[in-house]
Amino acid sequence: MLTFAQFGAGRIGAIHAANLAASGQARLRYIVDVNTDAAQKLATKHGARVTNIGTALGDPEVQAVIIASSTDTHADLAIAAAKAGKAIFCEKPIDLSLKRVDACLAAVKKAKMPMFVGFNRRFDPSFAAVKARIAAGAIGNVEQVVITSRDPGLPPIGYLKVSGGQFRDMTIHDFDMARWLLGEEPAEIFAYGSCLVDPAVAKVGDTDSVMIVMKTKSGKLAHINNSRRAAYGYDQRIEVHGAKGRLLAGNQTPTTVELADGNAVSSDKPLHFFLERYAEAYRIELATFVDAVVNDKPLPVTAQDGRQAIVLAEAAAKSLRTGRSVKL
Amino acid sequence: MLTFAQFGAGRIGAIHAANLAASGQARLRYIVDVNTDAAQKLATKHGARVTNIGTALGDPEVQAVIIASSTDTHADLAIAAAKAGKAIFCEKPIDLSLKRVDACLAAVKKAKMPMFVGFNRRFDPSFAAVKARIAAGAIGNVEQVVITSRDPGLPPIGYLKVSGGQFRDMTIHDFDMARWLLGEEPAEIFAYGSCLVDPAVAKVGDTDSVMIVMKTKSGKLAHINNSRRAAYGYDQRIEVHGAKGRLLAGNQTPTTVELADGNAVSSDKPLHFFLERYAEAYRIELATFVDAVVNDKPLPVTAQDGRQAIVLAEAAAKSLRTGRSVKL
Amino acid sequence: MLTFAQFGAGRIGAIHAANLAASGQARLRYIVDVNTDAAQKLATKHGARVTNIGTALGDPEVQAVIIASSTDTHADLAIAAAKAGKAIFCEKPIDLSLKRVDACLAAVKKAKMPMFVGFNRRFDPSFAAVKARIAAGAIGNVEQVVITSRDPGLPPIGYLKVSGGQFRDMTIHDFDMARWLLGEEPAEIFAYGSCLVDPAVAKVGDTDSVMIVMKTKSGKLAHINNSRRAAYGYDQRIEVHGAKGRLLAGNQTPTTVELADGNAVSSDKPLHFFLERYAEAYRIELATFVDAVVNDKPLPVTAQDGRQAIVLAEAAAKSLRTGRSVKL
Amino acid sequence: MLTFAQFGAGRIGAIHAANLAASGQARLRYIVDVNTDAAQKLATKHGARVTNIGTALGDPEVQAVIIASSTDTHADLAIAAAKAGKAIFCEKPIDLSLKRVDACLAAVKKAKMPMFVGFNRRFDPSFAAVKARIAAGAIGNVEQVVITSRDPGLPPIGYLKVSGGQFRDMTIHDFDMARWLLGEEPAEIFAYGSCLVDPAVAKVGDTDSVMIVMKTKSGKLAHINNSRRAAYGYDQRIEVHGAKGRLLAGNQTPTTVELADGNAVSSDKPLHFFLERYAEAYRIELATFVDAVVNDKPLPVTAQDGRQAIVLAEAAAKSLRTGRSVKL
Repeated sequence: MLTFAQFGAGRIGAIHAANLAASGQARLRYIVDVNTDAAQKLATKHGARVTNIGTALGDPEVQAVIIASSTDTHADLAIAAAKAGKAIFCEKPIDLSLKRVDACLAAVKKAKMPMFVGFNRRFDPSFAAVKARIAAGAIGNVEQVVITSRDPGLPPIGYLKVSGGQFRDMTIHDFDMARWLLGEEPAEIFAYGSCLVDPAVAKVGDTDSVMIVMKTKSGKLAHINNSRRAAYGYDQRIEVHGAKGRLLAGNQTPTTVELADGNAVSSDKPLHFFLERYAEAYRIELATFVDAVVNDKPLPVTAQDGRQAIVLAEAAAKSLRTGRSVKL
Repeated sequence: MLTFAQFGAGRIGAIHAANLAASGQARLRYIVDVNTDAAQKLATKHGARVTNIGTALGDPEVQAVIIASSTDTHADLAIAAAKAGKAIFCEKPIDLSLKRVDACLAAVKKAKMPMFVGFNRRFDPSFAAVKARIAAGAIGNVEQVVITSRDPGLPPIGYLKVSGGQFRDMTIHDFDMARWLLGEEPAEIFAYGSCLVDPAVAKVGDTDSVMIVMKTKSGKLAHINNSRRAAYGYDQRIEVHGAKGRLLAGNQTPTTVELADGNAVSSDKPLHFFLERYAEAYRIELATFVDAVVNDKPLPVTAQDGRQAIVLAEAAAKSLRTGRSVKL
Repeated sequence: MLTFAQFGAGRIGAIHAANLAASGQARLRYIVDVNTDAAQKLATKHGARVTNIGTALGDPEVQAVIIASSTDTHADLAIAAAKAGKAIFCEKPIDLSLKRVDACLAAVKKAKMPMFVGFNRRFDPSFAAVKARIAAGAIGNVEQVVITSRDPGLPPIGYLKVSGGQFRDMTIHDFDMARWLLGEEPAEIFAYGSCLVDPAVAKVGDTDSVMIVMKTKSGKLAHINNSRRAAYGYDQRIEVHGAKGRLLAGNQTPTTVELADGNAVSSDKPLHFFLERYAEAYRIELATFVDAVVNDKPLPVTAQDGRQAIVLAEAAAKSLRTGRSVKL
Repeated sequence: MLTFAQFGAGRIGAIHAANLAASGQARLRYIVDVNTDAAQKLATKHGARVTNIGTALGDPEVQAVIIASSTDTHADLAIAAAKAGKAIFCEKPIDLSLKRVDACLAAVKKAKMPMFVGFNRRFDPSFAAVKARIAAGAIGNVEQVVITSRDPGLPPIGYLKVSGGQFRDMTIHDFDMARWLLGEEPAEIFAYGSCLVDPAVAKVGDTDSVMIVMKTKSGKLAHINNSRRAAYGYDQRIEVHGAKGRLLAGNQTPTTVELADGNAVSSDKPLHFFLERYAEAYRIELATFVDAVVNDKPLPVTAQDGRQAIVLAEAAAKSLRTGRSVKL
């Protein structure tokens, strides 16, 4: 049994707390959140206690932390947890600033603590199966990756103001997915971006629609398309083209029901958003972290992966500004 | 919180016990099984106690029972539980003999206790959506129902000997599904059966491959095809044809991955068997029972439904013997 | 080049005439139809001449005939054509009466002329591929066949009065398909039928909705479901279950377009009716006949196949009347 | 009846000649090809005569020409045909050099002759349905277009040497498709390219794998991915994302057959290459041209469209060299 303190009692925190409770291998001791009502509610639900950062990190029985608080607190909490000797599960992004990411990674490294970054999509059973089949040689050498990643709707403009921009907030998952599927680091990146969903997005200096291309040193290519709006729900698909074939993983639907009537043959829209689509991925992700810490296995996603995604987001932003391919 | 005693610690018992534990609305106090090792193991896992029938039914804190023991014990346990004032969740079939089913129903009725029969498939999200869309008028008046229900492999011959035959053991689920989707009782039934999978099945007087047709009083038609073997896994599909359209519900797969290579475009086989395919159905089924008992709602599946499925199974067996349509 | 006379200038005659014209291996010399306007129009379109039966069959340059006139003329025309030494392509059914079918077959046999019956569905590329893959062993020994065959809408009641009933007029194609896919003759048949689409159908003594089951001597099973109405178009699907797997062939659509919007993910309805769905099948069917006659190859569908389908239709009608399995 | 002379008797010429013969609205009088054997064979098949350019263009009965000869002859033939007063159907590309394209367009304009460029994919029934549904407002304002276009295998290196490069030879179709679906001209373009299929491609200065992104003035985005190799056949798919939804059009398969066995559920690979996939598109394309010329309707694809695709190909090549977004 691994004993946890969790920072953050919001939407994603609620998921992790519930998965901890159901895992059978972990125990949630503390919840810390500036919103004490939310903290108390979540703590009560899972038999945990509300406390502050100091108490949580000072308790020697706490072996690991989940950092699911607001982005600007991630790096400091990770550093403090590392210094306190806790294994770290940190939501993405580590920080919006690469400098602070690097400071965080240095501190964690110095403390020799394992740090996992929550790229939950790697644990989606369909995406994981694509990766496994690539590894098994099903399509030969990977040549091109195409990632479609579209949210059902625009977040509040207030959120966008502090999000770090679409690349850091949204594409960051796709950057990680691209690196993971390519099996190589992108060496160059180029991006176009537009504001097509809502002019208010442009007013806060962000984009809501982007298309990115990347190239690795050996010439492998990847494309990402993002939109902050998809009328039909959360669109999350990947394609990997290799020398011997193609792997696709598509959306998931609530049911398999198909209706044929006088108008069309119609089936369910995709699961609406990340809470539904990646429910299983979140469960497996946390179980994998717990298993790795308990059994001293290598982490399948590391702080370094978190850093590389930020590097790509910064480069994409630079390409958007300059109209040039940015070398990495 | 509804307090349960459970009879049976086998495969299906393990599912129900786990769903009780996770439900948040119920508590499992006792496990009773002649296999005391299995009982102890399951009890330990879920914080319950192993006991005998008398103690379980004699405890006034026990409000409900799950009967998941061998078929020949269902009716007696249901009668005893009813007399002890417990709400009853009983696995199908209630009994292989219609006479004993009727005796059971009479005793339960006399005791005025609710009795639910575990036709889990009604709670499969896709099948439930089909039913809901029929009710909402999506396809107008139902005219024909086609049910495909095929197991991945033959059970042991020893099991078949005591199973009551393919109609009572396997088709019973499809009889219930047909009644539920037709929205009317079948008035006539006809069946062909063969032994195509293994000649050993014929030696114990059973079939392994059957095709059934049914007709309701108003002329609606239904077809069921069953096989004890499907090389690709558990094949569970329904079609409902109405005046204004058609509803289908298909198989479920572990992932959405599709591979295109030099040979074909291929995707996952269906989920292998009932434990995987109906995991969600089992969870919802039990939650529905608990909710109905706790909140005094009508049960969506009753002992009477259990009886009608047995009536159809007996009639199908008679049709198989006589080569005639059997009126109900 | 094979020189043809064609009897019948209606809907199906127009298809055959056009396919002859485009085949490059055949020439249409005569069109005969009691509707002289239709005959003249079709003849003009394809450079043929309108004539009467005597002239058409008396012309020694005519080597083959297409019989696509009304059903009651098929048998007499086939007999006359056989006596005149012409190869015969006859639309289904040969006749509504088995006695007349037998007389026709005897005359054709005596004249030693090849006679093909137009079971066009065998030449549908998807159905033909299913048959070929069964032959190649893809699913091992065939065990069960399920045929879904539903027309988009009810024909005029006037037509139904002379159609010979749903089994002879509509199911006849499915009987042929079942025999072909089973690879064995059905030894027993049972049928339920209803009038669900329009009460006027019952008034003329017919059904509009039927379900049939069949069993071969070795125990293979087949099911057919028919309706005279499908709101979404022509529903033509087959399933073949074997010891090692399952083959399906589904409907065809005008395009591959899929729309995802706020309501659903929707795609095209199936091709509307037989002219669209089986356009390619009709083309291949006639080309196969021409090739067989020109190159003296065995016919893939014979008059005997036409007879067997009528035998099954009669037996189904008898089962419907008697409520019993009818042995063949 | 429109009377044609056709230049070119190769693979694509054979398609056009056969479509002309079957159209019922056109007549093929002359075939011209430096390969006189091929010319004679095609002429014989369709009742045409082999001749030279002068005779063909000098015959006043010839009203239209099909230019399906090698790319380097397109512009000169189009100019000569225009001067001779013939309507022009020209295979893509008009020329590899934009300067020569412009000279050709000027001459054609001066002669006031209609000139159609063979972007056959616009006439694919599925792609045309996507365009029609966009026009009908099914997905609201178009925001992003994704085009997947992958050939089954590498052409001979000898061909690549004279092809003008992957952008002009292969992507040209996708540039046209992108413009057509965006409903706006791209204002900027960026491209990455690699040589992943065969190092011999790099030796002749070409790429075999490219990814392109484009942006219109209003901010709409488009992506194209190309490969000269797809192990599973010709991969031709489009996605259009709009404010209210998404339209997809996928690959086509020879049959609808699906096999489920112990390994997977598998279906047909896509139709192998353009001759199969776009057979219907070629037929409709030519019929549309004939109808437009005969009935004096506007051409749906013009020489100007041919020019714009070349402009995009040149800009993509420049982007590839410079690593910058190229403004148009």
